[in-house]
Amino acid sequence: MNKYKLIISYDGTSYCGWQVQPNHTSIQELIEKALFIALKEKIKLHGSGRTDAGVHAKAQVAHFSTNQSFILKKLQYSLNGILDPEIRILQIESVDTDFHARFSATQKIYHYQIDTGLYQDPFQRRFSLHLRRKINLDLLKEACKEFIGTHDFTSFANESHLGSCKHNPVRTIYALNVIENGSHLILEFIGNGFLYKMVRNIVGCLIDVASQKLYVEDISKIFDKKNRSASSAAVPAKGLFLVRVVYENSTKTLCSKP
Amino acid sequence: MNKYKLIISYDGTSYCGWQVQPNHTSIQELIEKALFIALKEKIKLHGSGRTDAGVHAKAQVAHFSTNQSFILKKLQYSLNGILDPEIRILQIESVDTDFHARFSATQKIYHYQIDTGLYQDPFQRRFSLHLRRKINLDLLKEACKEFIGTHDFTSFANESHLGSCKHNPVRTIYALNVIENGSHLILEFIGNGFLYKMVRNIVGCLIDVASQKLYVEDISKIFDKKNRSASSAAVPAKGLFLVRVVYENSTKTLCSKP
Repeated sequence: MNKYKLIISYDGTSYCGWQVQPNHTSIQELIEKALFIALKEKIKLHGSGRTDAGVHAKAQVAHFSTNQSFILKKLQYSLNGILDPEIRILQIESVDTDFHARFSATQKIYHYQIDTGLYQDPFQRRFSLHLRRKINLDLLKEACKEFIGTHDFTSFANESHLGSCKHNPVRTIYALNVIENGSHLILEFIGNGFLYKMVRNIVGCLIDVASQKLYVEDISKIFDKKNRSASSAAVPAKGLFLVRVVYENSTKTLCSKP
Repeated sequence: MNKYKLIISYDGTSYCGWQVQPNHTSIQELIEKALFIALKEKIKLHGSGRTDAGVHAKAQVAHFSTNQSFILKKLQYSLNGILDPEIRILQIESVDTDFHARFSATQKIYHYQIDTGLYQDPFQRRFSLHLRRKINLDLLKEACKEFIGTHDFTSFANESHLGSCKHNPVRTIYALNVIENGSHLILEFIGNGFLYKMVRNIVGCLIDVASQKLYVEDISKIFDKKNRSASSAAVPAKGLFLVRVVYENSTKTLCSKP
């Protein structure tokens, strides 16, 4: 068997998310259909992880196996010809048979985009959360520090109807950076993995601290409760981007225009 | 009479352009309707100029007159509440009665966005032209120089069914800059005014030179012919942004995130 790795960018606005779901259009399903048209073979695609309905990706990673051989550039060209312009295959490469898009990943990087302008920028409205209330950036940065390190993130994870990853709710966040560019704010999460809705739930909590609805000190108490209902509401999907998936000894995990 | 100046940003994708047209939805019409709801008075809005169907604006300028007085921030808040999120009123200010959004303008700045990546960026697909063919940036910059200065732009202007401005086809382009950012390219036009479809027709010609379909030397011949059919096809509207309108002694012509 030959194994291939895809790097994929998508505007998730109109889709039910990465994973195939009955009666909904998913990114995975559309790429599997495109692979079927291109290769005349039913292909099972394995993503690095799910992205929810409305969540975007600058560089999602997936792999598939087949007995076929083909010219990589030609397959990439075909797939991009078949797929909606909302989904682009940025790269296809041949990988070792022990590579797994999900299990070989060592780090994931997510961005959450926030528009802090007085009025929402029309060009950012599909890709960022517009915050009507003033936020305190110093408090935001203080709150970010509380999430760095290895924690039981039960209070920041939802149960998923698609099957839970919560048998082990412990994850490590290596960095949580605040990137400021005028009224455009990015919260950058670098971690070894993220539970269902974890990034959006943490961002909800960060905004509550930054808008003085919660104290920084409340965060450790929320962690201790190990209960999702103890924490803030999740922020909308539209501001969330899977920006990069990192693999050890990986040749290159392309990160398009972060 | 009191006179007010609006600065307006819009994603033009879904509209027939700035100017009111029968059986189509225009930006001007929607703002006039919003003003009617907010002020209970039929208001005639005067824009700095038309933008075509699908063209965007980061800071279009318009004015209107009324006998009413009101709190500017309150009116701005109301209008943004009434309008689609694709259209935002960025600023309202009181101006002298001799101010005219169109006739007082001394300069206009347009950006044309081009995506030169191998595959079109899903997040730029509504706001840039994706160029499949390779372009030569040196030739592009050489070609830009040919347009700078005062010229008869007849060969680069279309007749408009909305009424022509071509009684005087002479315009001055002060600068035509190439702004490079990875695979994202911006052509910046700074001029005293632009004829109907002039920017998009010039960009079409620039791309033809940069992709070696035309020589730089052909441009002066095209100017001399004073005939629209002598020049290249226009590029699509979706890459074009009215970025700023400059007024002499103007307090501030806000330019949002260019």
